[in-house]
Amino acid sequence: MKRDDAEVKLVDRVAAEGLAKELYRALATGDRTSLDRLLHPGFEGHTTEGLPLDLGGDYRGPDDMRREFWGRIAKSFIARAEPAEFGFLDDGRLLVRGRYTGTAHTSGAPLDAEFIHLLSFDDGRVRELVQLTDSGRWNEAPTPAERPLETVDFRITDGIGEIRLNRPAERNALDQAVADDLYEVALRCASDSGIRALLISGNGPAFTVGGDISVFADAGEGELPAVLRRMTTPYHEALRIFSQLEAPIVTAVHGAVAGGGLGLLYVADIAFAAEGTKFATGFTSLGLSGDGGNSWFLPRLVGPRRAAELYFEQRVLEAAEAAEWGLVSHVVTADVLEERARSAAQRLAQGPIRAYGEIRRLLRDSWSSTLSQQLVAETEAIGRAAATDDALGAMTAFLAKSTPTFKGR
Amino acid sequence: MKRDDAEVKLVDRVAAEGLAKELYRALATGDRTSLDRLLHPGFEGHTTEGLPLDLGGDYRGPDDMRREFWGRIAKSFIARAEPAEFGFLDDGRLLVRGRYTGTAHTSGAPLDAEFIHLLSFDDGRVRELVQLTDSGRWNEAPTPAERPLETVDFRITDGIGEIRLNRPAERNALDQAVADDLYEVALRCASDSGIRALLISGNGPAFTVGGDISVFADAGEGELPAVLRRMTTPYHEALRIFSQLEAPIVTAVHGAVAGGGLGLLYVADIAFAAEGTKFATGFTSLGLSGDGGNSWFLPRLVGPRRAAELYFEQRVLEAAEAAEWGLVSHVVTADVLEERARSAAQRLAQGPIRAYGEIRRLLRDSWSSTLSQQLVAETEAIGRAAATDDALGAMTAFLAKSTPTFKGR
Amino acid sequence: MKRDDAEVKLVDRVAAEGLAKELYRALATGDRTSLDRLLHPGFEGHTTEGLPLDLGGDYRGPDDMRREFWGRIAKSFIARAEPAEFGFLDDGRLLVRGRYTGTAHTSGAPLDAEFIHLLSFDDGRVRELVQLTDSGRWNEAPTPAERPLETVDFRITDGIGEIRLNRPAERNALDQAVADDLYEVALRCASDSGIRALLISGNGPAFTVGGDISVFADAGEGELPAVLRRMTTPYHEALRIFSQLEAPIVTAVHGAVAGGGLGLLYVADIAFAAEGTKFATGFTSLGLSGDGGNSWFLPRLVGPRRAAELYFEQRVLEAAEAAEWGLVSHVVTADVLEERARSAAQRLAQGPIRAYGEIRRLLRDSWSSTLSQQLVAETEAIGRAAATDDALGAMTAFLAKSTPTFKGR
Repeated sequence: MKRDDAEVKLVDRVAAEGLAKELYRALATGDRTSLDRLLHPGFEGHTTEGLPLDLGGDYRGPDDMRREFWGRIAKSFIARAEPAEFGFLDDGRLLVRGRYTGTAHTSGAPLDAEFIHLLSFDDGRVRELVQLTDSGRWNEAPTPAERPLETVDFRITDGIGEIRLNRPAERNALDQAVADDLYEVALRCASDSGIRALLISGNGPAFTVGGDISVFADAGEGELPAVLRRMTTPYHEALRIFSQLEAPIVTAVHGAVAGGGLGLLYVADIAFAAEGTKFATGFTSLGLSGDGGNSWFLPRLVGPRRAAELYFEQRVLEAAEAAEWGLVSHVVTADVLEERARSAAQRLAQGPIRAYGEIRRLLRDSWSSTLSQQLVAETEAIGRAAATDDALGAMTAFLAKSTPTFKGR
Repeated sequence: MKRDDAEVKLVDRVAAEGLAKELYRALATGDRTSLDRLLHPGFEGHTTEGLPLDLGGDYRGPDDMRREFWGRIAKSFIARAEPAEFGFLDDGRLLVRGRYTGTAHTSGAPLDAEFIHLLSFDDGRVRELVQLTDSGRWNEAPTPAERPLETVDFRITDGIGEIRLNRPAERNALDQAVADDLYEVALRCASDSGIRALLISGNGPAFTVGGDISVFADAGEGELPAVLRRMTTPYHEALRIFSQLEAPIVTAVHGAVAGGGLGLLYVADIAFAAEGTKFATGFTSLGLSGDGGNSWFLPRLVGPRRAAELYFEQRVLEAAEAAEWGLVSHVVTADVLEERARSAAQRLAQGPIRAYGEIRRLLRDSWSSTLSQQLVAETEAIGRAAATDDALGAMTAFLAKSTPTFKGR
Repeated sequence: MKRDDAEVKLVDRVAAEGLAKELYRALATGDRTSLDRLLHPGFEGHTTEGLPLDLGGDYRGPDDMRREFWGRIAKSFIARAEPAEFGFLDDGRLLVRGRYTGTAHTSGAPLDAEFIHLLSFDDGRVRELVQLTDSGRWNEAPTPAERPLETVDFRITDGIGEIRLNRPAERNALDQAVADDLYEVALRCASDSGIRALLISGNGPAFTVGGDISVFADAGEGELPAVLRRMTTPYHEALRIFSQLEAPIVTAVHGAVAGGGLGLLYVADIAFAAEGTKFATGFTSLGLSGDGGNSWFLPRLVGPRRAAELYFEQRVLEAAEAAEWGLVSHVVTADVLEERARSAAQRLAQGPIRAYGEIRRLLRDSWSSTLSQQLVAETEAIGRAAATDDALGAMTAFLAKSTPTFKGR
């Protein structure tokens, strides 16, 4: 049978889709060499009119697009184009649908905007990119000043971002103000590249007793769902941001850690607990299902059987049991808790933060990957880590039989 | 470059697909407010002729569709339309392919029917829905009377569904009758909204020794694969239904739990074992690979290393080891096993079943979710739980410093 | 509303896609009965011209296609057509895109080639299959002779493939030669169906100290990323192949197991450690993120908290701790390590290898499956295992109250 035109077209489409995927990968990793190879010398870009910073318009040539469009976006946003769907138009163009996700540098506001890209190809390269995106979403963040914090202390000392819950009279119960403050702090952490480790702790008798029940109980007729959603949303966004930071996290808990507050323990890479600390989910006695990432972390940390016991039997763990079950890394006496946690954070802050960031990403994404995919991800990550000054310095130190000094780049 | 018609159409399509997704969400959650907003006042529905209960035909207006079609389906089926694929026809209609899944109320028969929906839109709303579904699948359940049970006892007492394997002379070995009976019981549990907790146990010297090898050994030349498939299918469907019930499950085991029978332990939220109970997979000595969800639960409960030991070295665990490894929640002496398990079930039956259902779903779906997705799911679940009488009552009780009474709604 | 032609066509398409999926399933499982049912008596196959072994061309009738095309492929390749995407052409043909993956029997070279199939249907059967595949990928393996091994010993004795790291002076540090040798050995294992178990060990003072730092430190200016990628790629491919073998694996470690070398422990079904063995990740002191599948296995084996401790605090585990954490199955004294590991491998080699292969696949795929999917996979696997001589023999032995002898088929 003769291969007809339809089939030739199919083969072209396969190639085109491959090119497109390369393009998104190169943009995501800032791989300039690949970009140069992928873009046609006569490349044209047409971007959405309504974009902020006067970014919407026409771009001629690869350099123009790269410097004036992608480059300027990178200065203002931590943004990533994530393609979700590929399809072909009748005219042969490839339609890509996806989302831009990220954060605005200046305001810390989250970016989450749908896009459609129309890609044309010529001579094995990308010839034209027509971009349509929901530009309103890009403009939603009117560069507000930093919100003042009310219930959470935050300071940066020697590369360590110190976050301290500070609502001691209420045992650091999480209310709307704490949730908003944690979100604000998370945004500041995400936008401050000088932070090389985080230290999370709580002031007063307990790290946190979880959601502030008195606030919930005061909610008006039928308002409880909205009250909870309004509070959970920024709190969960804070947890999500913490989990995606490059900088490693140390959390130090004491007294009690309960309910959604456990999330601040889960996001840590090193978790210290003072002797006698109590751990509890506590949701079902309020007729609630829980938040704070408990349902994601607990089955993975302690297994489904014990996760169910913590939820359905409301078992309260002591610090030693929590360590045995794999919820915390170290149990120490209360008087050295702060000192031990701080020195762990200091050690991390003097470490190879780029490698730490790669490890954090690998461990986080591990659960959604097959072994084959994860092996590939490890190869790519180690390639990136090996390109840092820190890795080179460590190799030199090894040869010189000296101790490496990591600069975090 | 001017945005041409093709691009305008694309933007419309994005919007249309969004509308459609909203529609399925609203139908799945019974969200009438959203339905009212989504359906055009001139809405028309055309449904598949062959549907049971005279459901096939034409519906005019949102109210007609909602009351006469979706409402009457809801009376007879626990059914859910799960869209899987969206695409556009040349005439601009959105084609949605997916499956209706669920159970017939009266017969307990499972429903699993493919559908295609063709949606037209007008003025930002859904104007027409043409439904094609495999109506034969809807009719397969000819409302049989409840099958009499032979090998499993089942009764409902004070909101507790009590399931007792009752083939003591064969140490509750699983044969075709047990598999069929468990499936029948699972269907009854799924269709009885009065059940607020399940209690699973076994009569005789052992909870269950797993598959009945004498039946397998008696299988005729070349019939073993079919014999096993025929038995595993209803048994697995029973396990699947148990795992998806809203009501929490307590399982009490004693003597021995082996092979596929372990599945009845895995689906429990609280698992009691009598001292001396033996746990074993046992498959490989029969040249078999195993069933009962072992390969899903074991790696999650005890980790890959220990899961492999149970399979490849056929290690037999004692009750105390099983507790230490996280397979069971509590080990008790044999004489109090039933009492302890029953009182745990009673406590659960007096709990907030809607919140329990949300937690069960969150913990189950956790393994297929990223942290980001799970945080969103937790927010939605807590919003639903917070809307229950049980949550409101618990808040009131908190303010009054009294103990909440949960009504299960 | 009348069902119009478009809708009739849709129903046909649903049926056609179902047929196609059956076809891929039947090809994957070698299910000849289904193939006979699925192929139209007038079936025609048109395959890609450039395929090796003169496989490209036209085939007339189901028998011709089965014997001359699929049959001859099966003789030369362990290959599987994995469909990824289905769509319809305007002429009614079904387009299937996917990949052929597998290995060339003779050379052991991996096969990974994209394909497009165009399927036509007639009378409820497949009438025509037009195949386009990237035939270059099929030809890439020019049947090289087996590479001589330099740093790894490999021999097959009594059905046991024995792999021994043999770079004792460097404590079996992994360099390019070791990585290449392990890949070569993995390929040989994959292509030798006589191997019924693998035994992995190390010669000298330590199993392996991980990547050879002196090689990394010697990498020229800016070459470290490439050096690492070049080495990690075959090593990871070896690990991937080991993890996908049907034959179970025993690994015996002593002295030290570090860094990427831990991967050879992770792929084992039974892992022995000599008393005093040290386990460490060690990556971050080199400013690296790690390899060897650590980021996939560690969170699953020991939980996220302990995985983080091993990475971020570089905790070194003793053998006893490693067993307690679930990293190794058994700790034995150094003098009996080899004997114990070998006899475990011998026991496995006398077991039902087909069932073992099914269990290995189930446990590996478990992490990407929902419970529902895994229950279905278990049913299918047990059906295949039940069709083996080993399962039949075990049933007969059971009736005769004798011990079964497994032949591995």
